[in-house]
Amino acid sequence: MDTENTSGTIISSEKVRGTNVYSPAGEKLGSVEALMIDKISGRVRYAVMEFGGFLGMGTDVYPLPWDALKYSTEEGGYMVSLTKEQLDGAPRYNRDDSPEYSDEYGRKVYDYYNVPWL
Amino acid sequence: MDTENTSGTIISSEKVRGTNVYSPAGEKLGSVEALMIDKISGRVRYAVMEFGGFLGMGTDVYPLPWDALKYSTEEGGYMVSLTKEQLDGAPRYNRDDSPEYSDEYGRKVYDYYNVPWL
Repeated sequence: MDTENTSGTIISSEKVRGTNVYSPAGEKLGSVEALMIDKISGRVRYAVMEFGGFLGMGTDVYPLPWDALKYSTEEGGYMVSLTKEQLDGAPRYNRDDSPEYSDEYGRKVYDYYNVPWL
Repeated sequence: MDTENTSGTIISSEKVRGTNVYSPAGEKLGSVEALMIDKISGRVRYAVMEFGGFLGMGTDVYPLPWDALKYSTEEGGYMVSLTKEQLDGAPRYNRDDSPEYSDEYGRKVYDYYNVPWL
């Protein structure tokens, strides 16, 4: 698939992997590994993040509520406000051992980041 | 990434490619090639379909408004009501020559399938 189809705010699901994520100060934290999409509503529920060893976070991936991320057209990536302390206790998993993305799991993730589960 | 993370209605963007699309009669029409996502709202705007030679449609891909597709948990895929006549005049492109997904293009696609552009 052509990779130039990212004009405006529309991006192909094929290109989401690798979109950078920045701190509010503009520091690169990591990137989006995948989006988790609700097949029925077509809404993105989670961005699964990798932090590339940032802050010693290792190779686990971290599901974040979609609404915790803000897209910055300036940076060409997402911005998220996260501290090492927050991530230390955050839901995470080895990418080869994905949890069941049940409602119960979703509530846990959303609660952790204080995002309402709607 | 683990490919088993599709429980309930949540699916990884990595797995969307290849999800089957069926007619209301249950006939397989083709599959989803990619989802086009609004980076800012996190909503899926289009499903880009390939019809695998169905009805002689060739190898072009067809952007469909997301709301034209209904997910069927029974089929494990999407259902869409389409006729050959509809597809004959439908917006399409060679996958190596993607259009700019501008608002203007989006309105054209949505209008074609009589889906409101909101």
